Amino acid sequence: MKRTKFIACIILIALSGLQWNKPVKPSPKYVLVLHGGAGTIVKKNMTDAAEQKYREALTEALQSGYKLLLDGGSGLDAVVAAIKVMEDSPLFNAGKGAVFTNNGKNELDASIMDGATRAAGAVAGVTTIKNPITGARAVMEKSGHVMLSGQGADDFAKAQRLEIVDPSYFYTEGRWKALQRLLKKDSAKTELDHDEKKTSFVPAAPNNDDKFGTVGAVALDKNGNLAAGTSTGGMTNKKYGRVGDSPIIGAGTYANQQVAVSCTGWGEFYIRTVAAYDVAAQMEYSKLSVEKATRQVIEKIGKLGGNGGMVALDKNGKMAMPFNTEGMFRAAITEDGNVSVWFYKD
Amino acid sequence: MKRTKFIACIILIALSGLQWNKPVKPSPKYVLVLHGGAGTIVKKNMTDAAEQKYREALTEALQSGYKLLLDGGSGLDAVVAAIKVMEDSPLFNAGKGAVFTNNGKNELDASIMDGATRAAGAVAGVTTIKNPITGARAVMEKSGHVMLSGQGADDFAKAQRLEIVDPSYFYTEGRWKALQRLLKKDSAKTELDHDEKKTSFVPAAPNNDDKFGTVGAVALDKNGNLAAGTSTGGMTNKKYGRVGDSPIIGAGTYANQQVAVSCTGWGEFYIRTVAAYDVAAQMEYSKLSVEKATRQVIEKIGKLGGNGGMVALDKNGKMAMPFNTEGMFRAAITEDGNVSVWFYKD
Repeated sequence: MKRTKFIACIILIALSGLQWNKPVKPSPKYVLVLHGGAGTIVKKNMTDAAEQKYREALTEALQSGYKLLLDGGSGLDAVVAAIKVMEDSPLFNAGKGAVFTNNGKNELDASIMDGATRAAGAVAGVTTIKNPITGARAVMEKSGHVMLSGQGADDFAKAQRLEIVDPSYFYTEGRWKALQRLLKKDSAKTELDHDEKKTSFVPAAPNNDDKFGTVGAVALDKNGNLAAGTSTGGMTNKKYGRVGDSPIIGAGTYANQQVAVSCTGWGEFYIRTVAAYDVAAQMEYSKLSVEKATRQVIEKIGKLGGNGGMVALDKNGKMAMPFNTEGMFRAAITEDGNVSVWFYKD
Repeated sequence: MKRTKFIACIILIALSGLQWNKPVKPSPKYVLVLHGGAGTIVKKNMTDAAEQKYREALTEALQSGYKLLLDGGSGLDAVVAAIKVMEDSPLFNAGKGAVFTNNGKNELDASIMDGATRAAGAVAGVTTIKNPITGARAVMEKSGHVMLSGQGADDFAKAQRLEIVDPSYFYTEGRWKALQRLLKKDSAKTELDHDEKKTSFVPAAPNNDDKFGTVGAVALDKNGNLAAGTSTGGMTNKKYGRVGDSPIIGAGTYANQQVAVSCTGWGEFYIRTVAAYDVAAQMEYSKLSVEKATRQVIEKIGKLGGNGGMVALDKNGKMAMPFNTEGMFRAAITEDGNVSVWFYKD
């Protein structure tokens, strides 16, 4: 008996030794993390060619921001560069490729926040700014305000000499057809841009063409500063000047010196839970990790009946990208330039 | 020496006894708390007659909401009733009496939140809804959305058969003259509605006529449910469809089952600090009292260079009304019907 105990003891010590000597794999330091919308993104609905297109677009967006970060550019610069690529791509519901409102227009929202200074800017319901994220940045840096809306925001962008386009620039055939289908079904129906789930007031049938959503980016620059930005076309068939969470600081976008967050999903729930800021609040006040804090917020949204996802990056380059939908277009790059792209649940 | 120690001991015990026997005065339980704007509100600028007018208007607003609470009405009902009185009064920068935009219009914002369900509603930039707070409530209860803006929000209110008025209803001579003075000084100048301090981009001279601001209310009903609401005309001479914190859930208004908050002040700073929700977050995650949490948020706003105030009410009927301006119109009523009205620093 004594001998058995002795041997067991030796084995335990040996095992412990193995544990101690096991090399600790350092977790990668991420510097730029993107999302291209959450929703009913499932493998069976995606062709290899479609996957390839999204992979390429997300990689191009990452590289575009990463290049600036390598050259010592700010997190803000990287966020704007990455989001511009996604706004210019018809694949995403932001900029070119935005969904249509009930009256056949493209009304765009965007916001940005500088974690170092907690300066912020947003535009809501704009129709002529080619890259709404640049409109949000101009509001932050040049207007003395945080949020401008409608025609006034378009006028401001023009006065700031941002690139202005005719509203028809935002037209894409796929989005137009999606609106026509919805109008046919029920002109009072409003469809979430990238999901089958509708508001409790206006249930609607699945629409696979509209599962692609809002874009966003969070970045960490060489000076350790964080930034976050979000851009969207909102919901297909939206009426009454509906504003979602994307242009709302605290809801769709937030950044401070600890963490940067960008959200995508059923906007109303992100506003009610103050989702983006709640991540920062739980990290600051409850000392949660970025993984735990983001997961808690997505759980809160789920409990209220909402869905979607978010990406977040903390000051140490740790990132999180939880979602409670079928999938979320998402991508990240490390400080060493390693690119990862994901679509579905792991 | 021993004797001295003995005597000291006896004295200490006696003092402790006094402490123990001191009757604890129960703190009053508040059920409805209002603000009528923060700013350069100082005694020397107020006549007795002006004080009387504000006292009467705030008391009428309190009584209007209190009556409903006594009858078992909801916190939401009380918030709407109290805010309607202030919107209808030309004394406050909300509804009738709202300030003018740069192009001579009255663009109104309001929001409301139900603490029990965390349902929320808001309207931004509306021009024809007589009581914008009723527009916010209709958005919450009837639209399936949280925030509607501009013409769309006006159309929605009309479809909901809310009271619609011609935009000229909101005209008041004092506010019109305030705009004309500002336009004369500098057409590019934007003035905070109720304060001498302007955005860092557009400094302007003091304007004592415009020191009256945003209104708001927080209520606790007999079922223990909290609600918060806020209504404003924004900044005199505002341009480009500027949206402040008042229609933004989390910034100007927030309520959950622990606390209800309504803010007033330099809106851009309330958006950047996610002021209203930050009170709730500090109470939930850091276990701060409503007094401590609200004070911390006003300090944060001050550190960033902003100013203003807020009112908050917790689930136990404890209230707080901190501000870092010269004064704030504020009033509160206890469950016993005791009314208090304050204007200046204590």
